Amino acid sequence: MSTILDRVAATIAARHPAHGGDPNQSYVAKLLTKGPDAVLKKIGEEATETVMAAKDANPDQVVYEVADLWFHCLILLAQHDRHPQDVLNELARREGLSGLVEKAQRTENQAD
Amino acid sequence: MSTILDRVAATIAARHPAHGGDPNQSYVAKLLTKGPDAVLKKIGEEATETVMAAKDANPDQVVYEVADLWFHCLILLAQHDRHPQDVLNELARREGLSGLVEKAQRTENQAD
Amino acid sequence: MSTILDRVAATIAARHPAHGGDPNQSYVAKLLTKGPDAVLKKIGEEATETVMAAKDANPDQVVYEVADLWFHCLILLAQHDRHPQDVLNELARREGLSGLVEKAQRTENQAD
Amino acid sequence: MSTILDRVAATIAARHPAHGGDPNQSYVAKLLTKGPDAVLKKIGEEATETVMAAKDANPDQVVYEVADLWFHCLILLAQHDRHPQDVLNELARREGLSGLVEKAQRTENQAD
Repeated sequence: MSTILDRVAATIAARHPAHGGDPNQSYVAKLLTKGPDAVLKKIGEEATETVMAAKDANPDQVVYEVADLWFHCLILLAQHDRHPQDVLNELARREGLSGLVEKAQRTENQAD
Repeated sequence: MSTILDRVAATIAARHPAHGGDPNQSYVAKLLTKGPDAVLKKIGEEATETVMAAKDANPDQVVYEVADLWFHCLILLAQHDRHPQDVLNELARREGLSGLVEKAQRTENQAD
Repeated sequence: MSTILDRVAATIAARHPAHGGDPNQSYVAKLLTKGPDAVLKKIGEEATETVMAAKDANPDQVVYEVADLWFHCLILLAQHDRHPQDVLNELARREGLSGLVEKAQRTENQAD
Repeated sequence: MSTILDRVAATIAARHPAHGGDPNQSYVAKLLTKGPDAVLKKIGEEATETVMAAKDANPDQVVYEVADLWFHCLILLAQHDRHPQDVLNELARREGLSGLVEKAQRTENQAD
């Protein structure tokens, strides 16, 4: 499962114009060529579309828009020399702090 | 790595008020108790904060805000009976369609 | 001053495809032809660009992006059969409720 | 009508902590005391709520949320030493450029 985020991140890195990505062939290369603000506009846009899909009560569209949003977040992370694992580590750290993981796991065990 | 998203999703599911989550003890339970719009407002807010962190050129803050954004997306997915794996599958599907994964992998192999 | 908002609202109304607006000649007509979601995406996008202009500490760009944002809000109001005056009335109502207008006016008088 | 935007802008200016606004008594003073990012987060949040009101097909709520959004835009303009009139001038300038005002006015005259 995780390997998907890693693979997408690797693809994005390979599409960077500095690494030979071609703006005429690659959406990522085209977006990165437009400068750092372009991906930020997309994040605002995709977040809005995620909200709209939820208001439409369309779960498949929610998944589609969240994928769009996360994809552009992965591009943003690449622009800042960060990786999906950094985000996952942050999510794990919070769970550790709150002790919610343990609680969830206990709940799961009880459900067994 | 993937297990982190699964674990957070399991925690969120366990915190749902319908599953015994206590709004007085759990942020997720409190948010879900407010109705379906509350998490959508947070997604708009966290996307804005992600953009602001990027404009501040603060990579650690970008990671922190993306984690916040993804966390609320995981809550949204739970509300629509979808899972992080659905989002990852959608990201994988797009890579398959575009053939970008293979290209990236070739690039990685060449780098070995 | 107010007449500007009225005039823009009148222009938008005249550009509505139902009133003969031509999507090939008018941005508003083109946007409205795309359906109700198109202007909502623009509002999310223009709000993000407003935030970015502020983070860039560029006051002229802030004005430019706020104008973009308000313009799309005027289109949204038209779609819902509401007018800029309704928004101004709501703003006036809040000032009346809070008594802040009177206080501001007293402050202005003291400055005379 | 225009005087409403002017009055709200004057109120906001009077509520600025630098002008004696009290964060314990005034929402605007409290928001400005939090630093420049606080109002930006609100703009992202209010834009999202505007989108949600539109998706709910609730015109009164659309008006309410647009008023919220414009109110925070007025605070943002104050932070950047700009005024509502600057935004209105920009909207007027665009109409002038596009010639759409004249067209709209002709349409109105024909309707008489």
